[in-house]
Amino acid sequence: MPKTISVGRSIFANNDEVAGENRRRLDTAGVLAINVMASPGAGKTSLILATARALSGRLRCGVVEGDIAGDIDARLAEEAGLPAVQINTGGACHLRAAMLAEALGELPLGQIDLLFIENVGNLVCPAGVLLGERLRVVVSSTPEGHDKPLKYPAAFRQADAVVISKCEIADYVTFDSGTYEAYLRQLSSVVPLFRLSARTGEGMSEWVLWLEEQRRRHGA
Amino acid sequence: MPKTISVGRSIFANNDEVAGENRRRLDTAGVLAINVMASPGAGKTSLILATARALSGRLRCGVVEGDIAGDIDARLAEEAGLPAVQINTGGACHLRAAMLAEALGELPLGQIDLLFIENVGNLVCPAGVLLGERLRVVVSSTPEGHDKPLKYPAAFRQADAVVISKCEIADYVTFDSGTYEAYLRQLSSVVPLFRLSARTGEGMSEWVLWLEEQRRRHGA
Repeated sequence: MPKTISVGRSIFANNDEVAGENRRRLDTAGVLAINVMASPGAGKTSLILATARALSGRLRCGVVEGDIAGDIDARLAEEAGLPAVQINTGGACHLRAAMLAEALGELPLGQIDLLFIENVGNLVCPAGVLLGERLRVVVSSTPEGHDKPLKYPAAFRQADAVVISKCEIADYVTFDSGTYEAYLRQLSSVVPLFRLSARTGEGMSEWVLWLEEQRRRHGA
Repeated sequence: MPKTISVGRSIFANNDEVAGENRRRLDTAGVLAINVMASPGAGKTSLILATARALSGRLRCGVVEGDIAGDIDARLAEEAGLPAVQINTGGACHLRAAMLAEALGELPLGQIDLLFIENVGNLVCPAGVLLGERLRVVVSSTPEGHDKPLKYPAAFRQADAVVISKCEIADYVTFDSGTYEAYLRQLSSVVPLFRLSARTGEGMSEWVLWLEEQRRRHGA
């Protein structure tokens, strides 16, 4: 069973200070942490697990799963052989740095190269809250529609990379990739955009190459 | 062009008091208001527009569209011939009663039987915030997965009805309807559950009948 941390709302102060401490701790341990943000059901967990499989033998992945309730995602990660911690926010709509600090204490950081921090499913609230990550990745899935960058600009504006997931069903849900990209480019002309399917593997290699490059860039 | 209201965060106090005033105002006008809550891209707008079409000639529908930015949804509603107001929350993750109060002033309430209030796409934060609605409906789409009631219990627990949308692609996204319902029944043994597709019309008639029944129950 994965370790589950339940956290109330009251104990947080100075989020950015704690985020800074997390960042130093991760840097010292040589861990590149990635804050993964998306709507509920965008396929964050599937993407993380497929990425870890694709990186197998090259980079060692770990997972922090943020959810309001339940440990279903951390159990999936553990079954896939990854070090995983579940954070239950007890109603809070996003992770905070103190929650990540607690989770880091439960993980074998010396055995992790990439740490995926799966935020609570929410395309709004996590955007402004630093955890201590080096990279912020926004995932949005084709069935959510091509208007997401227009409607949720804050999350996309702050992203270091954007992933369009579930591309294998793009045709069934009449997803217009060009319109999506046009909206995204109004917010950021340079952010890398990956179109992929965690299920079929389509587009995964570009995404994985980018992650390996980021790992080299941020040292360790 | 639909009317757009932009609202900052600072002007709200006593949300529940304003919600009570909204409710009295809606009751007096004979309007049944429905707060529609869902993840980004769950198909709230498509459901509302398909419902208004199905009710055409029987009940007159109006729409309040809540979004962080953009007026794309209100324009769609206006193009469909519905009275519509767009609220831009300017970053706020859910509607508040004062935002609805402003929107009500822009709508021809005497010509509306059912008012759909489409909340900001967010399965977490709108759950605890009353607007003045008589009914709260949670929509979750098949591509989001069957674990949503487990992961976002607050929204589902407070719902007067739950809609599973995009059922026409359930098979492509390996959605397990039985598991979804089992999770939902742990939260509420009685809440009505509708499985439908706004695109194909499958399941719409039961949903529309329920709305008509609610309209009769709540008088006007």
